[in-house]
Amino acid sequence: MNTTPPTACPAWRKLEAHAETWRTARLANLQAGDPARGRQMQAAAPGLTLDYSRQLAGALTLRLLAQLAAERGFDAWRAALFAGDKINRSENRAVTHTTLRAGDSAPEDVKSSLERMIFLSNSIRKQKQYDRIVNLGTGGSDLGPRLLADAFGDGALDVRFVANVDEVELERALAGARPEKTLGLVVSKTFTTLETMANAAAMRAKGFRNFHAVTANVEAARAFGATEILAMPESVGGRYSVWSTVGYAGALSIGAAAFGDFLAGAREIDEHFLTQPLESNVPALMGLLGVWNVNFLGIHAHAVLPYAHRLRLLPAYLQQLEMESNGKRVDQEGRPVDYATAPVLFGAEGTNAQHAFMQLLHQGPRPVAADFIDASVNETLSANAHAQADALAYGTGDADLPSYRRHPGSRPSSVLKFRNFAAAGLGRLLALYEHKVFTQGVLWNINSFDQWGVELGKQLAQNNLSGSN
Amino acid sequence: MNTTPPTACPAWRKLEAHAETWRTARLANLQAGDPARGRQMQAAAPGLTLDYSRQLAGALTLRLLAQLAAERGFDAWRAALFAGDKINRSENRAVTHTTLRAGDSAPEDVKSSLERMIFLSNSIRKQKQYDRIVNLGTGGSDLGPRLLADAFGDGALDVRFVANVDEVELERALAGARPEKTLGLVVSKTFTTLETMANAAAMRAKGFRNFHAVTANVEAARAFGATEILAMPESVGGRYSVWSTVGYAGALSIGAAAFGDFLAGAREIDEHFLTQPLESNVPALMGLLGVWNVNFLGIHAHAVLPYAHRLRLLPAYLQQLEMESNGKRVDQEGRPVDYATAPVLFGAEGTNAQHAFMQLLHQGPRPVAADFIDASVNETLSANAHAQADALAYGTGDADLPSYRRHPGSRPSSVLKFRNFAAAGLGRLLALYEHKVFTQGVLWNINSFDQWGVELGKQLAQNNLSGSN
Repeated sequence: MNTTPPTACPAWRKLEAHAETWRTARLANLQAGDPARGRQMQAAAPGLTLDYSRQLAGALTLRLLAQLAAERGFDAWRAALFAGDKINRSENRAVTHTTLRAGDSAPEDVKSSLERMIFLSNSIRKQKQYDRIVNLGTGGSDLGPRLLADAFGDGALDVRFVANVDEVELERALAGARPEKTLGLVVSKTFTTLETMANAAAMRAKGFRNFHAVTANVEAARAFGATEILAMPESVGGRYSVWSTVGYAGALSIGAAAFGDFLAGAREIDEHFLTQPLESNVPALMGLLGVWNVNFLGIHAHAVLPYAHRLRLLPAYLQQLEMESNGKRVDQEGRPVDYATAPVLFGAEGTNAQHAFMQLLHQGPRPVAADFIDASVNETLSANAHAQADALAYGTGDADLPSYRRHPGSRPSSVLKFRNFAAAGLGRLLALYEHKVFTQGVLWNINSFDQWGVELGKQLAQNNLSGSN
Repeated sequence: MNTTPPTACPAWRKLEAHAETWRTARLANLQAGDPARGRQMQAAAPGLTLDYSRQLAGALTLRLLAQLAAERGFDAWRAALFAGDKINRSENRAVTHTTLRAGDSAPEDVKSSLERMIFLSNSIRKQKQYDRIVNLGTGGSDLGPRLLADAFGDGALDVRFVANVDEVELERALAGARPEKTLGLVVSKTFTTLETMANAAAMRAKGFRNFHAVTANVEAARAFGATEILAMPESVGGRYSVWSTVGYAGALSIGAAAFGDFLAGAREIDEHFLTQPLESNVPALMGLLGVWNVNFLGIHAHAVLPYAHRLRLLPAYLQQLEMESNGKRVDQEGRPVDYATAPVLFGAEGTNAQHAFMQLLHQGPRPVAADFIDASVNETLSANAHAQADALAYGTGDADLPSYRRHPGSRPSSVLKFRNFAAAGLGRLLALYEHKVFTQGVLWNINSFDQWGVELGKQLAQNNLSGSN
């Protein structure tokens, strides 16, 4: 694969020169001077549209970014991802999360684990032998299924999540639970994650006896006493695992049909990402524009603003996906990078954010990039998302207002508009960001699939525990 | 008051020169060379200790920051805050949130509103005429009481919060609620906040008839049909209002005694902030070190990491407090600033964050500052907080590790350690950040108490609504 650092690619220098002309550009003027801009800077994928006309970018910007992608070998990297090549080099592994949602063409072991999970979910939802489900997992074994359940849980079961080793969370999750009607799901690839195993032991010590496990360590799960053991794929990192048996609590919460839609939605985006040329490839465009903002416009914070209560946990999910994947300082060849990588990602559901931190986005001296996710049937929410994006882009020019009431504008954002947002839409949305992250990893020449800063945390926690024993 | 911009203060230039020596400093070397550093760079306030020995700063840094504070007239500004001078100039108002928790010395109208709130809370908690409370409010009318209830709610009442105009949130909050046993709290200073009034109307349309109001618009609340109207102080911004009747849902959730402790804890920090010299003043030090990180070390993101499940909503609360207060681009005299102001604030409960976005803090190429909040009796949590802070500060130097496993260190953080963290501790914690924000507002010469970027959002939302009608 291509080992040229991005900063050594000819397109990088061109983009730096090109950025000079954008530093003082006013989006309000651009829009006024080119009424077609809003129509042209759009791209569609199944079930959704990306409107990037409020980015501080033009046609030439996109061409240069596409050139940078070509010079970084984007097509080969993308092909290698889907071909199952070992592109996670520091761990010498293939990256297989897209195979989890490949449906009929998924590997046999994936299919059989998912089928077992769906069978169990259906049976538990129908037979009602349990009325409370408690998911014990942290990181990717928590954030994905928690988001799914919070977004589309139908209330058939009371599904709770415990990630923190703080006793308070387990106590709250078990409040009022009857041991014989409660099922604990112990979700840990190694079955050694400290927080998860501590919570599993604490739950058992409180007299709860029904456990299923999602793990790659069958022996340990059996020794713990799990009566069902669903295989967790070895080669998928936690933050890419919601599509697998790690999604069990999600499937229990939203039902098998919706979980199937969730996978199918992601599969549509995989197909789109693999086949569309860059200029109409939504996740690739999201990735390219992110690189433009970070490395050429110097914008190092990114707000994700879903205008839908169901997506209130999306920012936490994406914090892990983006910051754990691309918060890296050495490149694929182990060289320290001399350019910025993942920005800080944060966000909250709209319109709540408007009544909280949006002040800084409108009037802080340093710009923050934003994604507005219009995923609601509620017209007030949709109108607010577009109005906020417009205000960030075009500002308020009234020179007769006192300066503290003026808004400078020219702050870049995109609007992702979903049609009929449901479980399939959530699958599409998460897959979009996965491929955005992949695209950025390729441009930055970093391995998006290891997480040595997390491994350090686990090591330190282990040391502490040994020290205090 | 002093109108000299910070960048025109002599100390600013000295700090810029001083920062040169810190750009390449290694915290590991500093600590090794000066074993007393960890002991000396500490400050105590009632119930807590700030350890700032892992900041990229030394004794001279602190002296120069104190000089900057003096040149910006910090003492006079602080005195003006507590004297009730009209320091919120763009709205020509005094800033009175500290009077809300002044106890016996609070203004009579504040005392009588709070007494009425406590009387109602006690009566409802005791008489059980309601079993479900639904708080309808957004921004400051939501985040504060929501945090209080989530942290220390004792389960005596089922207290829910609805902030989003998305129907989904109200439907979930009312699931299973019986109209005759349910009390809605409509919390809006003007009683015109779009989201809040839409939700109040929707709740009434579903057959719910019991409402109390917290507002400064008594007439509108009466017309709506509220049977109790608690006065909301006119001169307190939403993000500073949890200490007032806006905390009603919090008081109902945690009880009158704990709510009293919450106010008393904040009062202790007010006294501390008002009387302690800068070098032992915890919130002032937090503010000064934040300015150092932002303006001199170029660190524009700040992570807040509470190691306690009870504080999982703290980052969202602080996002409003800090970013809405100091996310400003014009100074007190209306001049555009040519320096950075509030950083982007984000965070999550530990240890969850370690399994999610901490990767970027450890190994991203751009440093992020952090506050570790050690507020748990759980030893594992406490040990993890300190271990993470150490790893960020001192890194892992093993040259025999592959580069992707090395951690550069020298990433600044503070540890706030609380003793016996309970409602009083939460009051102390929130007051600390309020005064940190105030300190930074003084240094940056901005008005921390208006929010014209939010007013814009309200205006736009109103326009949309009129347009679509």
